[in-house]
Amino acid sequence: MTARLKAIYHVRGEAGSIEARAQAIAVEQSVEMPVDAIDDAFVLSEIVGRVESIAEISPGTFEVEVGLSAETISDDPGQLLNMLFGNTSLHDDVTLHDMVLPPEVIACFGGPHQGLDGLRARVGARDRALTCSALKPQGLPSPDLADLAHRLALGGLDYIKDDHGLADQAFSPFAQRAAACAEAVRLASEFTGHQTRYIPSVSGHLDRMRQQLEFARDVGIDTVMIAPMIAGFSNVWLLAREYPDVAFLAHPTMGGASRIAPTLLISRLFRLVGADGVIFPNSGGRFGYSRETCKAIAARALEPWESLQSSAPIPAGGMTLERVPEMLSFYGADVILLVGGALLSARSELVAATKAFTAAVADHNYA
Amino acid sequence: MTARLKAIYHVRGEAGSIEARAQAIAVEQSVEMPVDAIDDAFVLSEIVGRVESIAEISPGTFEVEVGLSAETISDDPGQLLNMLFGNTSLHDDVTLHDMVLPPEVIACFGGPHQGLDGLRARVGARDRALTCSALKPQGLPSPDLADLAHRLALGGLDYIKDDHGLADQAFSPFAQRAAACAEAVRLASEFTGHQTRYIPSVSGHLDRMRQQLEFARDVGIDTVMIAPMIAGFSNVWLLAREYPDVAFLAHPTMGGASRIAPTLLISRLFRLVGADGVIFPNSGGRFGYSRETCKAIAARALEPWESLQSSAPIPAGGMTLERVPEMLSFYGADVILLVGGALLSARSELVAATKAFTAAVADHNYA
Repeated sequence: MTARLKAIYHVRGEAGSIEARAQAIAVEQSVEMPVDAIDDAFVLSEIVGRVESIAEISPGTFEVEVGLSAETISDDPGQLLNMLFGNTSLHDDVTLHDMVLPPEVIACFGGPHQGLDGLRARVGARDRALTCSALKPQGLPSPDLADLAHRLALGGLDYIKDDHGLADQAFSPFAQRAAACAEAVRLASEFTGHQTRYIPSVSGHLDRMRQQLEFARDVGIDTVMIAPMIAGFSNVWLLAREYPDVAFLAHPTMGGASRIAPTLLISRLFRLVGADGVIFPNSGGRFGYSRETCKAIAARALEPWESLQSSAPIPAGGMTLERVPEMLSFYGADVILLVGGALLSARSELVAATKAFTAAVADHNYA
Repeated sequence: MTARLKAIYHVRGEAGSIEARAQAIAVEQSVEMPVDAIDDAFVLSEIVGRVESIAEISPGTFEVEVGLSAETISDDPGQLLNMLFGNTSLHDDVTLHDMVLPPEVIACFGGPHQGLDGLRARVGARDRALTCSALKPQGLPSPDLADLAHRLALGGLDYIKDDHGLADQAFSPFAQRAAACAEAVRLASEFTGHQTRYIPSVSGHLDRMRQQLEFARDVGIDTVMIAPMIAGFSNVWLLAREYPDVAFLAHPTMGGASRIAPTLLISRLFRLVGADGVIFPNSGGRFGYSRETCKAIAARALEPWESLQSSAPIPAGGMTLERVPEMLSFYGADVILLVGGALLSARSELVAATKAFTAAVADHNYA
């Protein structure tokens, strides 16, 4: 038998009809045609999706496990998404809850090159949590963004990333912005003695992202942000293979709510295609993920998974300085704390506020 | 003032808090930071999203219109998605219902090159609906798929497409499959005298899709299928620009349910990036779209929209021969009818069943 993967769905339904519904999902996600019109022995035994288990996990909600041949995926991460959830994503009664991949599929995709360890090594921070902030608002000219980056770097941050809204717009074109921000951060790092990294956001079609990566490398940048749901999984994966020395942070924009479990999408799928760090909305911020969900996202991004590097968890989305001790107690040291707008609100006191942030992280008792 | 676009959301909420929620969405989708920490006059007047209207459309559901600067999109379709729904897609209380784009943005993206008229011209069918079927199941070797294609073409179909599960797998690699199916359809067309077209599904990262398109052109193929939600909007758009003589059909896989209105996603966004035809789940099949939704999807794909070509509506997903007259009465002649599994179920009678399908479409009274 060929290697098989498992897609795990949560399906709303009734006990009397769930078996038929599960079977319909298994067919929809594999051969997508009446099974009794299939003669081919290989297709019948290997390719037609198989319902492997059905369990009622709460009243009216069933966990359905469907086995699929790994051959249907070949070596393409986009095709993995297609097989896991493609047409079934169009059905309102189903969410994609989890997946189980055979080792050879995981090895084929390869995951992150740097992981949390690599992100630590870049900034020389071994035992503490890492710090990050964001350049915004979009609409500012590149010199103003570079000035912000300079002041944030003077505050001793580890990473300073573009807002995910920053693309290749007329008000701060990618090349101009990346060059200016990288230089501003380099100058501040010389002053502080700390190796702060600037992280530009790459976007657009594959050719354009590749051009942006080439340009970024030319100006000394070794870490970038990318949005897998917009760029396309296959393209993110390819870039992570083509630029093994670059660290990639995944942004969850367009990740949808409630249709693909975030512990799968963010901690597994983004990691599988090569995200060295994964940004996600922390509980108690502007988004609705629970504490349990956030804990699970972080744990899964870090836990051993075959031979893959970890993805650094990056909780974000409305975090404040006041929450730093609580977040560190909750996540421990294996985390990158991202505080964006709350630092920018300090305005002329930006450097001081940033220093307070980095000091709180450095001085925290992680024991 | 710079050109502006409008994002239209449906938000679940209460009258007492909807203004604050609408304002929060406008900020999330633009500057993503506290507005009172912004000094820049251009950012404040042009870039910060503006709530333009709020209307309760049913008890507890509000239509919220947010205006955004077109400068935030630049010329990238992926960035359009990011600005319309990016982080807000992570909120459970909001769906993206519609958008209004300024003429210059629509012209910049350009839409389909062939549209329904071009798809009609390819197969020499002027006044009737067009016909289509699908090659499946995946798992069959290429010669078997080519044999199916041959028999479907002998039945006089206009278009024969790959199942969207067919990618570049070992059991039927793209190049081998495309060459075999194109040749099988060409031979059948010589026999019938009708210009049937084979439509391979292109998939993978941009480089790979481009290789597939080059190969397809080399073996005489001029129409392909692509999945924008997996390939990435920016890449679909680029390919449609690079291959202006090729017709692109968009498949809705991974299109999700209930978070982006299908009349927006399928009829507008897929059309905007260049889909000459849009496949969607017809009512009464395996998917839950209502008749009204399907009618609206088709009408919008065809209706005049600035200077853009139409996208041919392709209702599908469990259609049968018995439904052909009803579907033609419902959609009229400006439609491509796609019957897949129901034809394949005819097995040894496949050619006869296909002839019955094409005859029903040819003989229908469209008056």
